[in-house]
Formats: sequence, C-alpha cells, structure tokens
Amino acid sequence: MQEILLLLWCNMNISERNTPTLYLLPVPLSDTDPHAVMPPKCIEVACTVKHFIVENVRSARRFLKRCSREIDIDTLTFSVLDEHTDPADVARMLDPMAEGHDMALMSEAGCPAVADPGALAVAHAQESGYRVDPLIGPSSILLALMASGFNGQTFAFAGYLPVETGARTSKLREMERRIMRERQTQIFIETPYRNNKLIAELCRVLPPDMKLCVASDITGERQSIITRPLRWWGKAHYDYGKTPTIFLLFS
Amino acid sequence: MQEILLLLWCNMNISERNTPTLYLLPVPLSDTDPHAVMPPKCIEVACTVKHFIVENVRSARRFLKRCSREIDIDTLTFSVLDEHTDPADVARMLDPMAEGHDMALMSEAGCPAVADPGALAVAHAQESGYRVDPLIGPSSILLALMASGFNGQTFAFAGYLPVETGARTSKLREMERRIMRERQTQIFIETPYRNNKLIAELCRVLPPDMKLCVASDITGERQSIITRPLRWWGKAHYDYGKTPTIFLLFS
Repeated sequence: MQEILLLLWCNMNISERNTPTLYLLPVPLSDTDPHAVMPPKCIEVACTVKHFIVENVRSARRFLKRCSREIDIDTLTFSVLDEHTDPADVARMLDPMAEGHDMALMSEAGCPAVADPGALAVAHAQESGYRVDPLIGPSSILLALMASGFNGQTFAFAGYLPVETGARTSKLREMERRIMRERQTQIFIETPYRNNKLIAELCRVLPPDMKLCVASDITGERQSIITRPLRWWGKAHYDYGKTPTIFLLFS
Repeated sequence: MQEILLLLWCNMNISERNTPTLYLLPVPLSDTDPHAVMPPKCIEVACTVKHFIVENVRSARRFLKRCSREIDIDTLTFSVLDEHTDPADVARMLDPMAEGHDMALMSEAGCPAVADPGALAVAHAQESGYRVDPLIGPSSILLALMASGFNGQTFAFAGYLPVETGARTSKLREMERRIMRERQTQIFIETPYRNNKLIAELCRVLPPDMKLCVASDITGERQSIITRPLRWWGKAHYDYGKTPTIFLLFS
C-alpha cells in the first residue's frame, strides 16, 4: 500500500492532487509589506487556506490582513504551536486535513519549521502521508549565510549557544574545530539583549584571525551584514542590543 | 576609519546609501516563471542592475529575459564565476563596483553563494566594505529542511558525500553520531544519476529506524518530498535517477 502511494506521488497522479496539502507559509522577517518581499504564491495560499497552525495568533492575523483586506479572518481556524505546546497535542491540530482541507503552518517570523517548534506538525503530516509543500520566503539563516562570504558548500546552524559558561566555551571550541577541520561555516543566534556581550565573548575565546559575520535586522530598514576578523570586532563600536541578529564564524 | 565606517553602516547614514551594493540574486530552481516564484524585489533588481557575476551566462541571460522582455541584454556585462574559475581572478570581477556601479551575483539555480562558488565574490565585496544585500528566493536546502519534519533548530549541510567507499561510509557514520548525540539534522546532495544507488546504500549502512527524507524536483512540476524510515525505503519502488534531489537524515 505504501509502495503504491510512493509511485503515485512520484508520478503526480490525479489522486495525489486530491491529497490535502500542508503549506509551509513563510512570513516577513521585519515589518515590511508582504507584497514586496513574498512571492505571489505565498500571498495566494494566505488568501485561500482556511485552517492554520501558527506560532502566534495575533501576528498571524496581522500578516493575513496585510496580504488582503478581503480575507474574513473570523471564518478561519487557528491552532497554536509554540514552545509551550505539549507535543502530544500536535497530531490533533491536523484534524482538518483528515476532513480533506488544506492547511498552512506559519512561524512568527521567516520560514516555518526552521528554528521554531513547527517541525512537529510537519512530521505528523509526513507520517500521515499528506502532501507537504514548502513555499519560498525569507530565512535569516540562509540570507545571512549568502551574504557572509563564508563557505556555503558545508555549514551548520546550532540555534542558541548554551547559557552556562563552561558548556558555552566547549561549544565555541567545538565550532572552531569544525571550521578548521571540515571548513564548515558555523551559524548561531542569541537573545537580542545579549548580542553585544556575545561579540565580546567571541573576541575573548576565539583566535583573532577567525572571521565573524554579524547579520542584523535582515530585510529590515536597518539591515547590516558585516564580515570582519575578530581582531577588528574587538576594537569596533557597535550596538546590536535590541535587534534580531545572527552570527556566523569561519576562517 | 573602519570604526567610523561601522557606525555609519549601523545608522544607515546617507553616505552608506551611496555605497555600491552587491545584490545576491536568486533564480528559480526549476523551469518556472520567475514572476510566480520570485518576490517583486528580485525582479526589480534583475531589471535595473547592469553588471553581473554569474555561474553560467546562458542561463543567466534566459532568466533575465523571462524577468522582462524590455531588458537590453547586449548592454549588460557578465563575468563567469564557476567551479573552473581561478580564485585569483575573482577580485577583479568587482571592478564595476569600484566605479560606483551596483552588481548582482547569480547562481545557475537557487540562491547564490550557497552550494556554489559564488561565496568568493561575496567575500571580496565584504573585504572591500561594499554593501551586500541578499535577496529572498528559493533554496532547495532550506525548502527540503522545512518539509522534512526533521529538527530545524540544529542542522548541517554537507554538500556532496565523498566518492571513495571508505571515506563515504565514515562520513555516514559521523552523520549518524551527530544525529544521535546532537539531534542535528544531516542534509546532503548527490549527482542525479547516482540518487537511486545512494538510497540503497543508506539503507545498507544506517539503522533501519533512522528516517530519510528524499526531496526531489523542489518547486517543480514533479515535486515530491517524502519522509519515511530507512526500512520503508528499503522496500519502496522509486526512480529519482534524473532529477535534482536532496537528502536529509534524522532519527
């Protein structure tokens, strides 16, 4: 049965087109007009799907209203999948798909299921044999990697660094090893109010000729993406303290 | 001087707006209409920039013509940056920026400077203090990660696996360790004619309960993104032999 299903999928058979789809619907990273930064297909899906799984209902409603004033938000259903969601509750969020409805998954910013808890819903959709359709949109991780000038042939995203000092230093040392041995670009994030402290820490712990790219407010009004050796960052004046920022290391 | 420059950048001072920009201009992954899958800003940059660094001149010209018939292709300049380019030649490709012109970097498919040699040009632009502006577009790596249902909080892209059997098996074992110890999703690619062989090899080398996502012809007519345990793939019928496909492992 599953083998037959796979053949159908590969051949894009008519029956496959009738399978409900979970659209992975990106949203802008900053307060920009969706029509300027999103491909038309995203706007189209935003305007037609009726059942959503979202990280934050308020920001999801605001995004949908900016896509089209004609969307009747009150006719839509929203399930919340955020860091507080019990994983046991996620499977039920896909119930509308069992009834034949398409759904869309949305993060608070950027691409869903990357650096957020949305992957749980995608995993259930995959297990249920539903079609999963990832839509093109902004990802701060990918945009920062492109603009860093670092190796894009092999790279890793680590999410947040450990908070505890010992574990944090070990993690940075491990990243240094992977840069030197594997030529693997290392990407990570930090809570905005700790950005400045993190840069000082990187300058202290890592070799001064290692390169740091600081990519801040990507796609926003104050976008700034700067790659320089740590010895330069050690002397520079900067203030990234309130802005979503992503960090990349390479040598 | 460099410290002053950084302050200017962070504040988006007028002088910064006059700095030439290297736009990182994505192109579609498959033979789709750019207007359907690209955000308006990409089309706008494609229609206004006059100096390009491209992986392949023919496909770049075709993309630009599809963006607008009004572009006079013969007035544009193209430098080729591909796998055969001598790295020593890349700095000179940015000469138009020294004269104050914006430039755009384009890959053959998807986002430039990711899984292609374009990062060399970006590195030179960063060193020269030019503005680097990554535009939103399709990345098979990111779209596959979103749709896999695997961990998007930490992941790594390895490019191509080693060709030699011993090194290849070691690499797969290393990936298995990183999945188990770090919960890090592993992403890699293969030359299309070896796709089917690779799936059989993964089934042989890795534990049967490890999960494989095969993401094929992403954004294309025959897009298929399927996540199942290796024990399922070992019995499935498939043929990914001629299609650009990306592979993801997780447990």
